[in-house]
Amino acid sequence: MEFQDNHRCFVCGKHNPDGLHLDFEPEGASGVRTTCVIPERLQGFAGIAHGGILATILDECMVNTVWLRGITAVTARLEVRLRRPVGVGERVTFRAEVRRESALGFEVTSRAALDDGTVVADGKALLVKVGGKATQLSP
Amino acid sequence: MEFQDNHRCFVCGKHNPDGLHLDFEPEGASGVRTTCVIPERLQGFAGIAHGGILATILDECMVNTVWLRGITAVTARLEVRLRRPVGVGERVTFRAEVRRESALGFEVTSRAALDDGTVVADGKALLVKVGGKATQLSP
Repeated sequence: MEFQDNHRCFVCGKHNPDGLHLDFEPEGASGVRTTCVIPERLQGFAGIAHGGILATILDECMVNTVWLRGITAVTARLEVRLRRPVGVGERVTFRAEVRRESALGFEVTSRAALDDGTVVADGKALLVKVGGKATQLSP
Repeated sequence: MEFQDNHRCFVCGKHNPDGLHLDFEPEGASGVRTTCVIPERLQGFAGIAHGGILATILDECMVNTVWLRGITAVTARLEVRLRRPVGVGERVTFRAEVRRESALGFEVTSRAALDDGTVVADGKALLVKVGGKATQLSP
């Protein structure tokens, strides 16, 4: 299966009308960050962000630690701890950082925090390189 | 924070116009199953379902093992292995089963497979009871 970026990723694709359109910025030597207000349409219980969506954004954040450095990798293993419910409409900052690189891929950690610093979730992932940079289709 | 079901859950809410509207059916003594074709709007790379969305459906499937039995629990820890890419448009069956119940909550496992039996992802979760049945607002 070929990995192509057609800018319609649910989390970061600029051309996905149903997507979150998140921007990932480099932070430090091997990290990235992004900020998101989870919309009501992505809730689980009434007014509470779906935990799977928090996991999805943590995952995307972790993949972007290497993507922003020109490497395409996909998630092989994802672990997330959901520490407290996040209300829809709350602003959450997601950060991820590469912890270890091996021949197989990358071990990456991540966390999500409110503006007051409260950590609401954290995660780690094993990312596997899929060879070279993914094809970028016309932006 | 109160847990209410207003039928707008992203995965299963019948009244969420942007949701997946998945039905979860009991299976065996402590399991549930559901089937989903991931829509293109929830892709990561072009034509490939976002791994976080697979994790989200596995999560929801695991929560429903206890929800369908009248217990409200939320995910405290989620672990997912993504074994192979899933194309948008491929039909995937998700199953989950309670493995162990303790005073704290439930340990639940899950997996996602194609129609030919190929397992594309599996997961486990620790679910924590949040006390009684969540309020069900008018359907």
